Amino acid sequence: MAAPRPGPEASSPGGLPVAVDAMGGDNAPGEIVAGARRAAEELGIPVVLVGPPDQMGDTGGLEVLPASEVIAMDDDPGSSVRRKKDSSLVRAAEAVRDGKALAMVSAGNTGAAMASALLRMGRLKGVVRPAIATPIPQLGSHPAVLLDAGANAECTPAMLVQFAQMGAAYASARYGVEAPTVALLSIGEEKSKGTPLVKETHALLEDAEHVRFVGNVEGRDLLRSPADVLVTDGFTGNVALKTLEGSLRFFMDALLEVFASDEEAKAAAEVMLPRLAPLAAEFDPDGIGGAALLGVDGVCVISHGSSNATAVVSAVRVAHDVAAAGLVDRVARSVAPA
Amino acid sequence: MAAPRPGPEASSPGGLPVAVDAMGGDNAPGEIVAGARRAAEELGIPVVLVGPPDQMGDTGGLEVLPASEVIAMDDDPGSSVRRKKDSSLVRAAEAVRDGKALAMVSAGNTGAAMASALLRMGRLKGVVRPAIATPIPQLGSHPAVLLDAGANAECTPAMLVQFAQMGAAYASARYGVEAPTVALLSIGEEKSKGTPLVKETHALLEDAEHVRFVGNVEGRDLLRSPADVLVTDGFTGNVALKTLEGSLRFFMDALLEVFASDEEAKAAAEVMLPRLAPLAAEFDPDGIGGAALLGVDGVCVISHGSSNATAVVSAVRVAHDVAAAGLVDRVARSVAPA
Repeated sequence: MAAPRPGPEASSPGGLPVAVDAMGGDNAPGEIVAGARRAAEELGIPVVLVGPPDQMGDTGGLEVLPASEVIAMDDDPGSSVRRKKDSSLVRAAEAVRDGKALAMVSAGNTGAAMASALLRMGRLKGVVRPAIATPIPQLGSHPAVLLDAGANAECTPAMLVQFAQMGAAYASARYGVEAPTVALLSIGEEKSKGTPLVKETHALLEDAEHVRFVGNVEGRDLLRSPADVLVTDGFTGNVALKTLEGSLRFFMDALLEVFASDEEAKAAAEVMLPRLAPLAAEFDPDGIGGAALLGVDGVCVISHGSSNATAVVSAVRVAHDVAAAGLVDRVARSVAPA
Repeated sequence: MAAPRPGPEASSPGGLPVAVDAMGGDNAPGEIVAGARRAAEELGIPVVLVGPPDQMGDTGGLEVLPASEVIAMDDDPGSSVRRKKDSSLVRAAEAVRDGKALAMVSAGNTGAAMASALLRMGRLKGVVRPAIATPIPQLGSHPAVLLDAGANAECTPAMLVQFAQMGAAYASARYGVEAPTVALLSIGEEKSKGTPLVKETHALLEDAEHVRFVGNVEGRDLLRSPADVLVTDGFTGNVALKTLEGSLRFFMDALLEVFASDEEAKAAAEVMLPRLAPLAAEFDPDGIGGAALLGVDGVCVISHGSSNATAVVSAVRVAHDVAAAGLVDRVARSVAPA
């Protein structure tokens, strides 16, 4: 279940717009601009498009923040952010830093979006390393928040404890969960299972402040998560998420192939497809709203590279909602000593 | 595609039987004994049942190797193997060591099966740590072999290189692949991506003997593997495999629920189910034959804990086939310096 979302009459805190990187993603700028326009029209959320004005096409009267450069999907994140100071990604992050935007949204180069947010907005006090939080759909409930989904291949136990705290703050801001539960991804429920990193983190989480720790979960639990937040290092998290995505896509493709295999199957598919639609909608990446970079001093939502206009609408909505719910303050408080 | 399997007329090398742990698994001994009987009758593979003779029920005339103790599914692997010297698992491993059985099969406690095999059969010369190799179905081709699936939560680059070599030996013995390709599980195709373990292993695999390395793969590639062998540490491998299993099971359950949702859906399901059967069969864990412990001086096949008789038949067939194909010699040669 999504958080209650504002209707078209909603206004942003301080009337600030969400800054959308018009040039990020495989379908930029066309689908991105279309999504930004729809977000403004359908949700009533003010949006500012960031990028080269002459490349954006019809912006439908949306505000534009000019930026002359573009960071490509395959550019090296660190060096491109340092080199392309007038890129749409960097300018979007600066707009948040300078209080000109409520949040930033990009479907572009994930590493460069992270680097832009980190370098321009800065890290929140006390945060060792920012992490990427990704929603994992749960039937009949709000998604679980998995982090780190890939920002940090190498982690320490102290980092994982902060991921737990920041993930709980996100689950509160995003889904309205009052006291989110946290589980640790491992290879068995017993605290004796796993790597030294996992075992040490397990011990720390049992006593950590601001964390309702419910123990270990395994890979098979991801879609039936017993916790609101799933904590893991960025290597394992990335492998698990991509495995999940790959297997669901594989299964979908195989199913659709069978559905189209002959005339009788096609007729049966006409019965099945409307009944499968609610399930498919819950797993539609375009409806999920993207991943959030937690631990920086601003809201940064990263949508998947193949985002279409609908995905951009979702991402703008999420960025607006979590900013309005005070995500940054919540994250800052979550990692502060009691 | 499964490897060519022997018909009922097949004879085992030296006429040796496959030792089946009659007491291992959630459905032991009933389903295990039934599966052993079917393997003998349908495949013509000689089988010896290991366990307490008075608890096995009707063995249908199969040979029995008496063992008075049973290691439970939740017993501590190391201590139970040391303590229960007359357990069915330990006696099965001893039968292989003593040349009385061609291979062992168990659906019991995975850790205890590993420990029994390792302690009784011993490690092959030069092998740092044995690993669990698990088949991952690939539509239209033989399964890919993923290892390590969970034997070693902590790994070194040298261990992963051996896993590559042993996995290739297994793919040859099991699926008849002449020069198996090997990929490394990471979070990006670039050699600069991943943990220090992955990056160092990538560099070593580029020059490793007996290894046709094709580069990194990601979690989303597991069901469309570009390589015959997928190498990873036992923590990541276990998380990835369980994520795969969990998501396929989730999708299956959700699909079956929709299929049964009303009368019209049920009628359409009658059209769909026979067309989905071949797909379901490829992913049926009971048909896959279980995981193999590689690096010990004998063949040890571990079937999943919920194995039914069909799963036992598959496991006996795999154990027989890879033993007959000289798996142990192949693994020993694969890790030997050129």
